[in-house]
Amino acid sequence: SFSRGMQTVTLIPGDGIGPEISAAVVKIFDAAKAPIRWEERDVMAIKGPGGRWMIPPDAKESMDRSKIGLKGPLKTPIAAGHPSMNLLLRKTFDLYANVRPCVSIEGYKTPYTDVDLVTIRENTEGEYSGIEHVIVDGVVQSIKLITENASRRIAEYAFEYARNNQRSSVTAVHKANIMRMSDGLFLRKCREVAEDYKDIKFTEMYLDTVCLNMVQDPTQFDILVMPNLYGDILSDLCAGLIGGLGVTPSGNIGANGVAIFESVHGTAPDIAGMDQANPTALLLSAVMMLRHMGLHEHASKIQTACFDTIKEKKVLTKDLGGSSKCSEFTAEICRRVQDLD
Amino acid sequence: SFSRGMQTVTLIPGDGIGPEISAAVVKIFDAAKAPIRWEERDVMAIKGPGGRWMIPPDAKESMDRSKIGLKGPLKTPIAAGHPSMNLLLRKTFDLYANVRPCVSIEGYKTPYTDVDLVTIRENTEGEYSGIEHVIVDGVVQSIKLITENASRRIAEYAFEYARNNQRSSVTAVHKANIMRMSDGLFLRKCREVAEDYKDIKFTEMYLDTVCLNMVQDPTQFDILVMPNLYGDILSDLCAGLIGGLGVTPSGNIGANGVAIFESVHGTAPDIAGMDQANPTALLLSAVMMLRHMGLHEHASKIQTACFDTIKEKKVLTKDLGGSSKCSEFTAEICRRVQDLD
Ligand SMILES: CC(C)[C@H](C(=O)O)[C@@H](O)C(=O)O
Ligand SMILES: CC(C)[C@H](C(=O)O)[C@@H](O)C(=O)O
Repeated sequence: SFSRGMQTVTLIPGDGIGPEISAAVVKIFDAAKAPIRWEERDVMAIKGPGGRWMIPPDAKESMDRSKIGLKGPLKTPIAAGHPSMNLLLRKTFDLYANVRPCVSIEGYKTPYTDVDLVTIRENTEGEYSGIEHVIVDGVVQSIKLITENASRRIAEYAFEYARNNQRSSVTAVHKANIMRMSDGLFLRKCREVAEDYKDIKFTEMYLDTVCLNMVQDPTQFDILVMPNLYGDILSDLCAGLIGGLGVTPSGNIGANGVAIFESVHGTAPDIAGMDQANPTALLLSAVMMLRHMGLHEHASKIQTACFDTIKEKKVLTKDLGGSSKCSEFTAEICRRVQDLD
Repeated sequence: SFSRGMQTVTLIPGDGIGPEISAAVVKIFDAAKAPIRWEERDVMAIKGPGGRWMIPPDAKESMDRSKIGLKGPLKTPIAAGHPSMNLLLRKTFDLYANVRPCVSIEGYKTPYTDVDLVTIRENTEGEYSGIEHVIVDGVVQSIKLITENASRRIAEYAFEYARNNQRSSVTAVHKANIMRMSDGLFLRKCREVAEDYKDIKFTEMYLDTVCLNMVQDPTQFDILVMPNLYGDILSDLCAGLIGGLGVTPSGNIGANGVAIFESVHGTAPDIAGMDQANPTALLLSAVMMLRHMGLHEHASKIQTACFDTIKEKKVLTKDLGGSSKCSEFTAEICRRVQDLD
């Protein structure tokens, strides 16, 4: 049939600049003849039976079938009690690992060069458990929940990732000197899993020390694995080192191949619809997606075309220091993709 | 009497390189004729009545009397159940504000210039409450405790600090999008206090966003105020921007003038006793202390002598890129202090 060898991906264009940068990615994928059939869905939560917020059924059904999503930025819901869409998606599909490779981009100047690290963040529990209480008036507690299972699972993911991506070391990031039981449990599981991966060097480091060392010399790090909140912090810090969220890809990985790849920047409502957005973060997330799907050749081709475009500095969007439109930047990448054939 | 106008400071030399760098500070204070009488004490905790760990009585008594401490690095206690000395000191004297100015040092090259910010960290609660439980096997919770009183107190401290130090803005750092109740309470108190300081600009920012912006352009920040753990992270990150813990001062401030100033680097046992340590962090902490005591002229003189020595690059310790001994670096600062008279 026409779609022989085609794989379906659920496309969640998102809000603001989301539709524009999604369209750019679709164009570039077409130019690269990536065997992807897009199924577009809106995920903005609705109130389900019993008043619980949920992903709309047709979006859920599409993801359940395709297993793979590509998602643009979503606006922060304003309805009272409406959950963060990011959190709801992670929860709905049990996307337990958030993976953000941070690699210096040639031609895009920052104070750092040769950054090449990956943050792997536990994406389901920790400080994000959502359990909070007022004890007495003026006294509030938030609960950080750490489980053996989730800790082992993310540690295993990190070491598997290291092995499959020819990486040589994994650093567990923690504050077990302060949260002895919770971070202590997380760290113990990392140590146990490390025993099964003697080919990968394992180290441990306090979160504060990681931050200090990171801004002094990020090249010393390879894979970093950590509980939820620390990952939130470190992944943004590392994105800053290589140029910010406009150029940083992200993948949320679940069990059995389920995954959603996304740009983590905002919806940029001020430039939405003006053909000024930079699609790089979503494109590089889509490249991660292709690798996840085993489509390595298409991934490499698109990535090369994107990085070459940035390196050459002739056709760049405003935020990258140029004056080209999103459509021009996209066309340039398409041209290069086709030249690579 | 001989000690007319002299003020007592409790000196806690600490371990490893602690005694050497403390001796350096004492020498430089002598050269500057700082009106300080040092009372040396050992604070390493002992088991008190009822088996509770406590600061030895003569150290406690000295601090209670002098109200001001200067502390070198302490080794991590190894006895089972022994508390972190840093935490025990903060607790014993209710040192609720941790203040770390981060200012670029001329002549000491890092990827950043013109950094001039101050992190103000709530130092008594939050993730550091020490309350943790095993719920069931493999499931652990740590409790983050946020109170109205401690939040208001640190917010007030931050705004007062801003006003007294001719600073123009205070940024509250939080994750109230995730920890809505606890960080929400912290943020609400900051907003309330901000109302009383219309002369100071108030902004709010997510911790992850602060980290990202910080490594891209730290000059946009002025005073940052935040809960305990975020301060632990951000203060180290910021120290990294200006050259690390070897050059970063720190003050722990309590009520009624009580305060302990300290270098936050480690004990460096590998070079202890070898006359190679860099006393800068402890010296700059001692300068903060002089300002806290109202001895601004002595503070300025010593600070100028220290920064000029670093700027001139002739007499520097190894970690600062030179080959001089601690004693030579100290003598050079003393010489310059005397020249300033
Ligand atoms: C939007 C927010 C809920 C989210 C988080 O805190 O996890 C974001 O910062 C991220 O890193 O994906
Ligand atoms: C030593 C440790 C307990 C301490 C902390 O986590 O607060 C240190 O990192 C600090 O910043 O003073």
